[in-house]
Amino acid sequence: MPDETDAQFSHGSFTLPGEAGFEELTLRLSKIWGADTIRDSDGTQLSDEIMESGYDIYSTVCLIRLLNDWLKSHRYALQQCYLMSFPVTADSESTAIELLGGYFDQQMQVNLDDDPKEWWQVHDRTTGSLVPADQWRVMDNGQVVIEKTIPWHQYTVNFLAYRIWDEISMYNHVTNDWGDREHQMPADPIHPAVQEQILHYLDKWIEEHPHTKVVRFTSMFYNFFWPWADGKDRRFVLNDWGSYEFSVSPAAIRRFEEIKGYRPQAEDFVNGGRYWSSHAVPTKVYRDWMEVTHDFVVEFGKVCVDKVKAAGKKAYVFYNDHWIGLEPTLPGFGKIGFDGIIDGIFSGFEARKVAETEGVSVREIRMHPYFFPTGVNGAPSFLPGGNPTRECKAYWMDIRRALLRKPVDRIGFGGYLHLVENHPDFIDYVRGLAVEFRRLKSLHVAGNPYTAPLKVAFLTAWGQQRAWGCCGHFNRNNYYNEAMESISGLPVETTFINFEDIIRFGIPADIDVIINAGNEGDAWSGGEYWSRPEIITQLSNWVGRGGGLIGIGEPTAAPVDAQAFRLAQVFGVDRTVPAVRNQTPFATRECNEEHFITAGLPIGTSLGKEIDAVRPISPEVIILRCGLSTVQIAVNQFGRGRAVYMSGHRFSPELVRLLHRTLFWAAGKEADFSAWTTTNVHTECAWYPGSACLVVVNNSAEPQKTSVRTAGGEKLDFQLEPGETRFHELKA
Amino acid sequence: MPDETDAQFSHGSFTLPGEAGFEELTLRLSKIWGADTIRDSDGTQLSDEIMESGYDIYSTVCLIRLLNDWLKSHRYALQQCYLMSFPVTADSESTAIELLGGYFDQQMQVNLDDDPKEWWQVHDRTTGSLVPADQWRVMDNGQVVIEKTIPWHQYTVNFLAYRIWDEISMYNHVTNDWGDREHQMPADPIHPAVQEQILHYLDKWIEEHPHTKVVRFTSMFYNFFWPWADGKDRRFVLNDWGSYEFSVSPAAIRRFEEIKGYRPQAEDFVNGGRYWSSHAVPTKVYRDWMEVTHDFVVEFGKVCVDKVKAAGKKAYVFYNDHWIGLEPTLPGFGKIGFDGIIDGIFSGFEARKVAETEGVSVREIRMHPYFFPTGVNGAPSFLPGGNPTRECKAYWMDIRRALLRKPVDRIGFGGYLHLVENHPDFIDYVRGLAVEFRRLKSLHVAGNPYTAPLKVAFLTAWGQQRAWGCCGHFNRNNYYNEAMESISGLPVETTFINFEDIIRFGIPADIDVIINAGNEGDAWSGGEYWSRPEIITQLSNWVGRGGGLIGIGEPTAAPVDAQAFRLAQVFGVDRTVPAVRNQTPFATRECNEEHFITAGLPIGTSLGKEIDAVRPISPEVIILRCGLSTVQIAVNQFGRGRAVYMSGHRFSPELVRLLHRTLFWAAGKEADFSAWTTTNVHTECAWYPGSACLVVVNNSAEPQKTSVRTAGGEKLDFQLEPGETRFHELKA
Repeated sequence: MPDETDAQFSHGSFTLPGEAGFEELTLRLSKIWGADTIRDSDGTQLSDEIMESGYDIYSTVCLIRLLNDWLKSHRYALQQCYLMSFPVTADSESTAIELLGGYFDQQMQVNLDDDPKEWWQVHDRTTGSLVPADQWRVMDNGQVVIEKTIPWHQYTVNFLAYRIWDEISMYNHVTNDWGDREHQMPADPIHPAVQEQILHYLDKWIEEHPHTKVVRFTSMFYNFFWPWADGKDRRFVLNDWGSYEFSVSPAAIRRFEEIKGYRPQAEDFVNGGRYWSSHAVPTKVYRDWMEVTHDFVVEFGKVCVDKVKAAGKKAYVFYNDHWIGLEPTLPGFGKIGFDGIIDGIFSGFEARKVAETEGVSVREIRMHPYFFPTGVNGAPSFLPGGNPTRECKAYWMDIRRALLRKPVDRIGFGGYLHLVENHPDFIDYVRGLAVEFRRLKSLHVAGNPYTAPLKVAFLTAWGQQRAWGCCGHFNRNNYYNEAMESISGLPVETTFINFEDIIRFGIPADIDVIINAGNEGDAWSGGEYWSRPEIITQLSNWVGRGGGLIGIGEPTAAPVDAQAFRLAQVFGVDRTVPAVRNQTPFATRECNEEHFITAGLPIGTSLGKEIDAVRPISPEVIILRCGLSTVQIAVNQFGRGRAVYMSGHRFSPELVRLLHRTLFWAAGKEADFSAWTTTNVHTECAWYPGSACLVVVNNSAEPQKTSVRTAGGEKLDFQLEPGETRFHELKA
Repeated sequence: MPDETDAQFSHGSFTLPGEAGFEELTLRLSKIWGADTIRDSDGTQLSDEIMESGYDIYSTVCLIRLLNDWLKSHRYALQQCYLMSFPVTADSESTAIELLGGYFDQQMQVNLDDDPKEWWQVHDRTTGSLVPADQWRVMDNGQVVIEKTIPWHQYTVNFLAYRIWDEISMYNHVTNDWGDREHQMPADPIHPAVQEQILHYLDKWIEEHPHTKVVRFTSMFYNFFWPWADGKDRRFVLNDWGSYEFSVSPAAIRRFEEIKGYRPQAEDFVNGGRYWSSHAVPTKVYRDWMEVTHDFVVEFGKVCVDKVKAAGKKAYVFYNDHWIGLEPTLPGFGKIGFDGIIDGIFSGFEARKVAETEGVSVREIRMHPYFFPTGVNGAPSFLPGGNPTRECKAYWMDIRRALLRKPVDRIGFGGYLHLVENHPDFIDYVRGLAVEFRRLKSLHVAGNPYTAPLKVAFLTAWGQQRAWGCCGHFNRNNYYNEAMESISGLPVETTFINFEDIIRFGIPADIDVIINAGNEGDAWSGGEYWSRPEIITQLSNWVGRGGGLIGIGEPTAAPVDAQAFRLAQVFGVDRTVPAVRNQTPFATRECNEEHFITAGLPIGTSLGKEIDAVRPISPEVIILRCGLSTVQIAVNQFGRGRAVYMSGHRFSPELVRLLHRTLFWAAGKEADFSAWTTTNVHTECAWYPGSACLVVVNNSAEPQKTSVRTAGGEKLDFQLEPGETRFHELKA
């Protein structure tokens, strides 16, 4: 554990959620944790006692949730979205569809004010065709009745819905059992009248918050896409932290049409129920919509931020919730003028997302667990049965890896402080964590840690726009996210590129290794881009001339003829297309033999969820590991370059090391690998030459022995406690 | 074991392969095994001693392998095929392709006699486009040089190749190490001159075989598609027991054009390297080609068979090898006039294929292991390290299940008899097996076994054409084959239907349950047929009105929008499309609760290779079993019908029973299930009312206790030895 007596690291860079009615606790914990800042949370207001206690004060404001009364008489100004009714199977020639059947009726209300015949679409999904507008009508009870339906075909209605309960308010309300507290409605600032209301309110709010040093916007205008279900058998219909569907309304579409010169149809938003999934390759309409929405959010966001700054306060933004159009990876982010960003995160790749945000001076991560009775997955956190200390440790060990590489400026927690009171072990753990965080931060101030001479790029349909999974946090359940999480703590330079940029500008000259990790048809693998000859040519050429390519899962997948991976010849392996499983695979060779990549990897190590039926397609490819019915790891020389295929990847100590070694082999830089690595895969290290400090971490819940190889080839031995961060100063 | 002293079952219905030079052994084993017939094998000729020993004699003749000398001066008459050269990646603007690179040069020779510019095609496979004929030329060294190639694009040549070594001769030669014995070349009877030669030879052959009672054609004219590889890293390029590619030649194409009015191009045969896979949905060209080839094989086959019959002999045909166009499931099969068929088989579904062949009076199965040093998979059979008795038992237990349901007339073995000599346990086991076989056969003679009042249909793109896997034997490595194998021994009526017939004629009225089992895009699931609204409508209607549908693996798969299974609404589950994995699944309900289908199924029973990420899509579906990340078994009421989804299936005692119960539940006939079933899944039974005999079999290598439930509800107890067949006579 860090030297807790070191006063230098006992205070600052820590935001604590104050709680009204628990003033004594708030001040006591502030002291223990070394907080320099106290914030309010959704649904709480800090007391004057706290406001005047000398701490910096963050105050939360959510601009679009403030106009409940006004919205009651200006219903048109509610935020909206397109929904697709759930498919109904016709059983006769007339079919009635309950538009909101299956949806949560406290969230959505059908918009009958904008002419359905202009804005809606009805589809026969069995044939994929549009039902002519004269064959359907909207009934007084809100149903749509379709005539001339074909029995057993499935029909849907794409319709506009008002959102009558802001999703975050709804989530907090339901999670904390707020009973009959009024439901907050979201106002849409696309309307000048709403902007006027918001600015008026903001002026008043600023006036009423003299103690507030930092205005913490939560967040700006549009929530991520989160339609809820009726709750009988599932709580949500879907949950996409990066999708723009909640910024859609007739007013926004008309504005879009003015700017872009064309009007998208309902189906452009609904996409047969796919909507705009962050996992899908974005359509042209979606790309255009993102651009137009981003520009709007920047423009009006700046007006709000300027007001805050004019009042002598700082403006921070929370990076989730109503953050659509606010991605710092989009070109206008810096123009808004935020002083800081705050993000609630769970993992290493999210820490990197925050750390690499440009155009702000303060980057703060809100740790988990949130001080709520239950966590985001519904499991108990501070309720009996939960173990918040264990939860916090697990998240911290993953986040710490990323912070070894790139620093953030602050940490903090959120929620109801009183829930912490009966968890003394948690209080103590957080104290230690805060000291550790501050000491780590100080090392970065003194200079960057050692980074290997190797630059890796993730190639996806999104590229930099979704760098470090920048579509909010979602689960680590796909090859792309798992690989990002593993790499978030590795001492390599990491970047993100997309196919459009490759087509226009080629592959950047400084990249050593490209990773393509995903499933067939998803945005991470690249979907239809792999049908484009220029992509195949550019990547082949790049590897052929010496580049390193790593494919995970179904890389380069866009099946044609007997081929599933379009760069199969580069990898030397391909996935067997079921319809041509009569073909004989090449014999696998060197299975389980020692290779630089798999050195030290225990036989039988699971790669997690794997792609099946991958087979060698060339006599030259070398198979390093085989599963029961798939090639697991294969390496192939292609021209002057190298390619590696892996049938799966998950974030685990063994596979982090495997990926680390794979990067160096693919780049042909095996000789550079050893410097500042550890011998035990449960441990990692970072070397800070500016401070002459070596940090060695134990990522496991067991004690670990490990040795660190210095750049000079020396071996330093360590024995670490579970989860320990060891700060080891080296003589020059 | 059956009563071996029963003289009634000690003789007959058994074909033994005689071996020249081992006359004493041949006669001794004939006696032990009760053989009534002795056959020769490929590459052997029986001695006069055996010919005159009083046994019926089968003599093998392979008509297309007899013309080696003549073919040397009539090279045009060799059989041919289209091949696609393996893709070559261009590295400059001129690219040379070695046409036979990677192929076995003793099997194939490039055909330069038919104008390459007329018959070949060159493709840029990266763009999918044809390279104009003036941009490539054939060099004297047999290479093709392509000009104006785009670096890093992949190019292929579709070219014609002569086949200079008959594949079966080649296989036997290589397997048995025949050294410098002459390679037999295949003649193509599409040429009238070849027909003349064959008929002339056949006349002579008949004259020279006065003792032969049965002419055993091995087989007729065209081998299944089996291009071999250069052998460095794989032995075969592919192996498709049902594919017609070896019947292709310029002469056959010209004839086809006359009949069908259009000329297929090289790519119609090559299909970008997919060729005509039996696992793929057949194209229109392939269907037409099958028809034309079948008609030809029937026509000229009948001429040959008539000659044999005119000589007072019987004509049998071996069902593999050169059997293309001979499928008994095709309309003309009966017209050829064969007296019998013989097939070398490994499993139950193949036994059913033989048993259900119509238009012949004798159906014979050749058991395995073949008396060769190694088996078809290259593992030792009669070589040291092999255990032929265990091999034979394993095959017999699977085949026996099918023979309980439908009889064949004869069994036999093939290969080199002397290999058996040092395996007394094998000799003894086969004696017992033969007695058991004869006794089983006698029960069928006395009347059909009890069959439940339930008719099941497999729905595939092939339907009856590939009934019981009628594309030769291939491995049980896909959902369709595994399900067929399980059902081959169940007391239900089984049939096969295809999509074209459904479109034209609807679903036959007598079918209770339809099974759709396969992978997305393969012929067994149905591929593009599931994009056709009329198929979706007909199947939905059929289930909605009371039918039972069972889907295994990726049934009805043809992804569109957010949907993978086109009858997802019928199953109540769908596979998650990776690009839309942001959607929230319905909660699973009743997981692991008792249900008719899963009664007795041990928790954790593996379904074999499974489809991942299947999720409930309706609140009504009932999930019976869940895997880590997939629904394994789900049942759903759809209208008045029932649907069952299973994420996998393999032939195992537990899953045979599961499928058996599933059939009855899907049909709504649970009440009819119990009659003549066993309580122990390792045992099965068949009731022969005509003989008042109950047969109970132990399908395992362990002793088993079991009880049989009679139709009246009585329970009869049995204790069975490993592998035992118990014949139990019941009083009336």
